Amino acid sequence: MSKTPFNQGRFFEDFKLGETIIHATPRTVTEGDAALYIALTGSRHIAHCAKPVAHALGFADKTIDDLLTFHIAFGKSVPDISVNAVANLGYAEIKFSHPVYTGDTLTTQTEVIGLKQTSSGKNGIVYVRSTSFNQNHKAVLSWVRWVMVHKKDLNVTTPETHIPSLDNVVAVEDLIIPADLDANSFDTAVTGSQRLWDDFKVGERLNHPAGMTVDDSDHTLATKLYQNNAKLHFDDLSMQSSAFGRRLMYGGHVISICRALSYDGLENALFIAAINAGTHANPSFGGDTFYTWTEVLEKWEIPGREDIGALRLRMVGLKNQTADSLESTYIEEDGKQRYHANVVLDLDYTVLMPRKSK
Amino acid sequence: MSKTPFNQGRFFEDFKLGETIIHATPRTVTEGDAALYIALTGSRHIAHCAKPVAHALGFADKTIDDLLTFHIAFGKSVPDISVNAVANLGYAEIKFSHPVYTGDTLTTQTEVIGLKQTSSGKNGIVYVRSTSFNQNHKAVLSWVRWVMVHKKDLNVTTPETHIPSLDNVVAVEDLIIPADLDANSFDTAVTGSQRLWDDFKVGERLNHPAGMTVDDSDHTLATKLYQNNAKLHFDDLSMQSSAFGRRLMYGGHVISICRALSYDGLENALFIAAINAGTHANPSFGGDTFYTWTEVLEKWEIPGREDIGALRLRMVGLKNQTADSLESTYIEEDGKQRYHANVVLDLDYTVLMPRKSK
Amino acid sequence: MSKTPFNQGRFFEDFKLGETIIHATPRTVTEGDAALYIALTGSRHIAHCAKPVAHALGFADKTIDDLLTFHIAFGKSVPDISVNAVANLGYAEIKFSHPVYTGDTLTTQTEVIGLKQTSSGKNGIVYVRSTSFNQNHKAVLSWVRWVMVHKKDLNVTTPETHIPSLDNVVAVEDLIIPADLDANSFDTAVTGSQRLWDDFKVGERLNHPAGMTVDDSDHTLATKLYQNNAKLHFDDLSMQSSAFGRRLMYGGHVISICRALSYDGLENALFIAAINAGTHANPSFGGDTFYTWTEVLEKWEIPGREDIGALRLRMVGLKNQTADSLESTYIEEDGKQRYHANVVLDLDYTVLMPRKSK
Repeated sequence: MSKTPFNQGRFFEDFKLGETIIHATPRTVTEGDAALYIALTGSRHIAHCAKPVAHALGFADKTIDDLLTFHIAFGKSVPDISVNAVANLGYAEIKFSHPVYTGDTLTTQTEVIGLKQTSSGKNGIVYVRSTSFNQNHKAVLSWVRWVMVHKKDLNVTTPETHIPSLDNVVAVEDLIIPADLDANSFDTAVTGSQRLWDDFKVGERLNHPAGMTVDDSDHTLATKLYQNNAKLHFDDLSMQSSAFGRRLMYGGHVISICRALSYDGLENALFIAAINAGTHANPSFGGDTFYTWTEVLEKWEIPGREDIGALRLRMVGLKNQTADSLESTYIEEDGKQRYHANVVLDLDYTVLMPRKSK
Repeated sequence: MSKTPFNQGRFFEDFKLGETIIHATPRTVTEGDAALYIALTGSRHIAHCAKPVAHALGFADKTIDDLLTFHIAFGKSVPDISVNAVANLGYAEIKFSHPVYTGDTLTTQTEVIGLKQTSSGKNGIVYVRSTSFNQNHKAVLSWVRWVMVHKKDLNVTTPETHIPSLDNVVAVEDLIIPADLDANSFDTAVTGSQRLWDDFKVGERLNHPAGMTVDDSDHTLATKLYQNNAKLHFDDLSMQSSAFGRRLMYGGHVISICRALSYDGLENALFIAAINAGTHANPSFGGDTFYTWTEVLEKWEIPGREDIGALRLRMVGLKNQTADSLESTYIEEDGKQRYHANVVLDLDYTVLMPRKSK
Repeated sequence: MSKTPFNQGRFFEDFKLGETIIHATPRTVTEGDAALYIALTGSRHIAHCAKPVAHALGFADKTIDDLLTFHIAFGKSVPDISVNAVANLGYAEIKFSHPVYTGDTLTTQTEVIGLKQTSSGKNGIVYVRSTSFNQNHKAVLSWVRWVMVHKKDLNVTTPETHIPSLDNVVAVEDLIIPADLDANSFDTAVTGSQRLWDDFKVGERLNHPAGMTVDDSDHTLATKLYQNNAKLHFDDLSMQSSAFGRRLMYGGHVISICRALSYDGLENALFIAAINAGTHANPSFGGDTFYTWTEVLEKWEIPGREDIGALRLRMVGLKNQTADSLESTYIEEDGKQRYHANVVLDLDYTVLMPRKSK
């Protein structure tokens, strides 16, 4: 019997500056996905679970959770972009640009926007901007990430270095506010919290009280739902011989868990407008219990809008230690600052929140 | 950084007799929720899983399982009513009053119907009647429960004691039969059992043969689906220092598991009309295997109806012991009667079942 | 209290040649079921997850995964056919005959097509052909299986032996191609693989690279979703005293896991047209990690069609050992050939795959 070679994904030399890659497996998002997302995260964000509230906010229907959209869209890019990645180095400019409704079909494509061979000559850094579109060719989400990828042939010509210019933060002028959104008649009874944009202060810290233990079935069900097929999340046997010793939790799912845990205190943070940057500080595994704290980094009025404002937040995810009990997010070791071993996530993101009516 | 105080829920002195509390997080129930409920419980109740059968029974569509409706509605009341509860003391007068369909949005509100400070002066018992409405302001479900809640300020004035008058059993005259329900042409082929209301005898006991092991992922997925955020079900780390030593299973999910296990022998118990009383006799944990037995307590004709009758049932849930092997539901200890350690549920409820055609 | 006898299922003497049994619990298949199936298997088969792709293939909507349809339909037959089975002996002539869409309701019925008492006189083999219909009485799926069933009364008269004539393989002429299917404009971008029917060779072997660990929650959620209530999958306590020592994974779910794992390399195997034969070579349990290899057995043109062809495949499922590392599917022991202990599935099935356009 002859053996078939499989699609092995792209190596560094396979990426060309400016090229566009269309990813496989368009996905229709359904009520089933939305319900599973609630079961997998415990999310209570109101625009995603209550149709009349979404209507009152100007939308045609309840919308799909921004992070569920992100995970599905992101998963499509894995086989082409990061299957041979040595490391996922960073994220930037994640912008949510249009609501996703049940029945919408997402297709994702990626443009190569930067290349830089590493000094060893064995790897290279690839910068990509990915965009996900609905069935009407409307962009619903875009993001930049950069990954270190192996070279397959070490003798191949080094491409010209091109490092894209990226924003550290998506500026308030660049946030894309859904055209339909109108929070003028938002009723805080639906979230149970009267704290609105006006009430938050820059520098304020929220140690969210809830904790959640995530088992192996939970995170693998989630990651399969997202159709993210990165082997290290699923194949416990092969992972036993890795440095981790077992299946690794998909970092995106950790973001979702922390976002759900941050609901208490941020009940009116209705939508994610942007993710500015993110670090998966330490790996997470089945059985870990997660806690979260949030700091308000910036507070922005949105040009031309009196119904909503934006908050730039830092959300830090912890495993197996409560936010109250963590003395410092960082530790000093040999004169270098590192993340505390129980910190798993450091996310810089921007939410939209209704303002008090004048 | 300043710290934000969180909504800490109500203490005993925060409840006022006669006040109405509108709970947050209205929820649109979807096909996704219904499918997850089947996956989480193994339920086969036919009006909830087969559209043509629901049509033949007079409904516009298959209906949402009564217990799924209850869990979602109940979960909404947790943050306002029982988050500071010392103990959930009892339930009464749970009445299902209108079918719920996929796409319906449930909103829950609660009236304080009784208050009684305990003799220690440190706690009080709060009696509440909660009602859940669909988007057309139609009540779909109501229930009474009473919980013991901490006082925050021990010096606050003691309220006048008012204990509501509650029915031990929802009388047959008070059962609310769905207006659309017509079982005259019910075909037992859809359930596989020809035993109808006429065939059951008061005093009859059914030791349902099926057993089901429920793991931590199962019950936490369910409780997150219900958006019930009571910490003790999710946070295994903090529960390690509790008397339980680990995450506790939501008692409502145990009711659902037992109801699903009771299908064999009660195939034609199509709908729950009322829950008269219920006791969570012992705690349940991930890994427990559940079994169930049912006793027929009463058998009622429904005034004006020849197509259906009501059965008042006692459903007893067991963990890690089969119904056949349990000698007695109670044990005697120091002259007092207690539940056997393997009994987890003692539920008194009323079902609707088609009658034989004349 | 009197005890109620339960429906104990049929014993050998209860089956009559030629009789038709209509199974209980018709089931409406929904978006919730489809989403759960993706979460439970990681399936990426494109006609089941992307509406525009299904439209482009000629269908009214994305279709329900063939195996999800099979599991739901099969589960209905368990209480009547195999609840007293000593052994599930074999499968044949599984034919998928009509697409299933969300909202369709499946009803299953079974004809007894063969009977043979065993030489011991204690058991008999029952051959049945089951067919599942949608709400418009259109057959969507049929299959033959044979099971060994206990006799209850050893003195009952032995029925005349009748062994049906069964096809080893569903011949290409007998495959039922969906009337709506038109793959003339199929775009391989949606699957990410350009390998079409023309590119496969008889004898070719694909060692699919992916592996998946399946935990107890995963397989029990799946089997409950299928409403297959065979006790041995759910009741860990009673299974502790069985030869297995614990809950057994439903063999059908193993087929689904292997089919999902075989996606890499068979991306364009859009639909299952038939399952010719199948063996569950060894039992599987929660925690097992699965791998799969496929061999191309036959390659058939479909009469009158230039847009699609059929591939007859052998899919072998392994537990806890990769396809690359398995030296032989069989082992020799005492002169007899048996399956290697890590082989769990040996399935002979036929897929439909688009052809290159002329």
